[in-house]
Amino acid sequence: MTRNYNFSAGPSALPEAVLQQAQQELLDWHGNGLSIMEMSHRSKEFVGVAEQAEQDLRELMQIPDNYKVLFMQGGATSQFTMIPMNLLGDKTSADYINTGDWSKKAIKEASRYCDVNVIASSEANNFTSAPSQSELKLNPDAAYVHYTPNETIRGVEFDYIPDTGDVPLVADMSSNILSRQIDVSRFAMIYAGAQKNIGPAGLTVVIIREDLLGKALPQTPALYDYKVTADAGSMHNTPPTFGWYLAGLVFQWLKAQGGVAAIEEINRRKAEKLYSAIDNSPFYSNPVALNNRSWMNVPFILANAELDKQFLAEADDKGLLNLPGHRSVGGMRASIYNAVPEAGVDTLIAFMHDFEQRHA
Amino acid sequence: MTRNYNFSAGPSALPEAVLQQAQQELLDWHGNGLSIMEMSHRSKEFVGVAEQAEQDLRELMQIPDNYKVLFMQGGATSQFTMIPMNLLGDKTSADYINTGDWSKKAIKEASRYCDVNVIASSEANNFTSAPSQSELKLNPDAAYVHYTPNETIRGVEFDYIPDTGDVPLVADMSSNILSRQIDVSRFAMIYAGAQKNIGPAGLTVVIIREDLLGKALPQTPALYDYKVTADAGSMHNTPPTFGWYLAGLVFQWLKAQGGVAAIEEINRRKAEKLYSAIDNSPFYSNPVALNNRSWMNVPFILANAELDKQFLAEADDKGLLNLPGHRSVGGMRASIYNAVPEAGVDTLIAFMHDFEQRHA
Repeated sequence: MTRNYNFSAGPSALPEAVLQQAQQELLDWHGNGLSIMEMSHRSKEFVGVAEQAEQDLRELMQIPDNYKVLFMQGGATSQFTMIPMNLLGDKTSADYINTGDWSKKAIKEASRYCDVNVIASSEANNFTSAPSQSELKLNPDAAYVHYTPNETIRGVEFDYIPDTGDVPLVADMSSNILSRQIDVSRFAMIYAGAQKNIGPAGLTVVIIREDLLGKALPQTPALYDYKVTADAGSMHNTPPTFGWYLAGLVFQWLKAQGGVAAIEEINRRKAEKLYSAIDNSPFYSNPVALNNRSWMNVPFILANAELDKQFLAEADDKGLLNLPGHRSVGGMRASIYNAVPEAGVDTLIAFMHDFEQRHA
Repeated sequence: MTRNYNFSAGPSALPEAVLQQAQQELLDWHGNGLSIMEMSHRSKEFVGVAEQAEQDLRELMQIPDNYKVLFMQGGATSQFTMIPMNLLGDKTSADYINTGDWSKKAIKEASRYCDVNVIASSEANNFTSAPSQSELKLNPDAAYVHYTPNETIRGVEFDYIPDTGDVPLVADMSSNILSRQIDVSRFAMIYAGAQKNIGPAGLTVVIIREDLLGKALPQTPALYDYKVTADAGSMHNTPPTFGWYLAGLVFQWLKAQGGVAAIEEINRRKAEKLYSAIDNSPFYSNPVALNNRSWMNVPFILANAELDKQFLAEADDKGLLNLPGHRSVGGMRASIYNAVPEAGVDTLIAFMHDFEQRHA
């Protein structure tokens, strides 16, 4: 068996140690004679796994006690609906910051439920930066402010947490949760599809301040009501048990690496060396403003786009997989989430140098 | 490693051969150097897996071409909401048959969106039978008729498919899909949470006739609109890829067993011998009408309920796991889904005889 380096934007790389443990116990979890995925979600064994996962996530992110942690289904896209359904209350509008494709999707869905005010947008510069705090045209009457701290497709990451005063701040952290330390108390709600930094697709983590619960619109589906999920300990119905279990293994792996502070240092190094390789070469380029360059998703283009296919084919041959850019932007994109080892980034950089030498 | 016999009602047993294959390729799927769950859902590899799974399910159930097969999230509980949201159209009421706890949950959620007419109920006899065709008080103006062909908790299975004339028939087949041959064309829509006869929790299969698509209520969440999912090939957003892959392995396993006709014969034998063991003993009993006894979920009680704990403890020691009845009814329940081998039923029966000899 050869494991390749996997730069997929999502679903994406998982820590090899996590996969090995899951493999080892796939048919017989802890001597029980059955797989964890064959167990009732209400069994004491699975409940233990589930509670440990929540506890580890709380510890990793230092989540305050007045926040609920929900393990849901449906991905970030389902949150685009749940957020207005749950947070509007008696308000009629919400503020959204538009920094790319994922922001737009969130805006489009929210517009079906309320008036959306786009309070800042980087569309004019083709989403190569994030608006600064002073550019945000905040509305004090907004039910909440929504933004995308890291835009996966174009690799744009906020270098600050917006100050929204008394208006609740909601963040789609699908592609940068757990990548660096954040102050959770600055947010009213954080959510993330699991399939980048947490676990397999099909699990969604929601971290929400308790005072925001219980205001769902009347027609909200039961499973879209955060309070229903919170009151049932995320077991109003059968949760995605295997995904929850794997997320728990990822949290334990992260703790074993030294926690978020330690992975933050590794992520900083990985990103800095890859951006350096791009910036120090006339052959590669990245258009994003220096202070908004994502640590997780690094898009780049070649000086000669006709070489794209060859670059990708040779990378593939060297076990550097899934480097094509998103179909809407082309070029290349290296997603270097927590589970992508630093050696993978080093190997990619060495290949980029080599390719440039041969083709520049 | 010892594999035990697992009579869990859900999440429940998976075929050992499926788990072995998943284990073998968990870190390196088909020589790609990464796990299937680390791949983009839009990669040609995963799309191939997804399409094959749908094709195999179509073949196994002989699904007509004018039905869509959707791979969704949220379990049967999410369908309880989606069904009225998608199928009401310009109607204001729907017919429901009440045969137990799961029917009641479906009714409760639908009542938030329309007038529910309970057109038959077996509550008066404590849900120990299913209403007959002649007992159904069908309303020609109903948007649809909903029923639960197999009630997991009390082990009650319909022995016929209701004839609802021109009114679309919707069935929650979570606990008996693929257990025996059915004529899909008799149904407007069939749905099933995966975690009993299909795969791991977190995946939901919906089979829906095409003419029912496109009538969702205005406030329907994007991911709750069957047409959105159908138009996107179940990839409007990232699907639960690992569950979909495992479901595909289960479908292939089922084909290797000889398909649904073959598993139906095995299921018939398993159920008949277990009910015989119960009926031929004064020590065990099952209250369900003979023609409505479930092939999938076999509840039974002991003549002396004080022996329940001992029965369950001894069964556990013998590797016969998860036999407690649902908390709402007590006693025992053996769920004997497709993946529970006939040898497991034989071992359970032998243990029941032995226990009776020692305690009757």
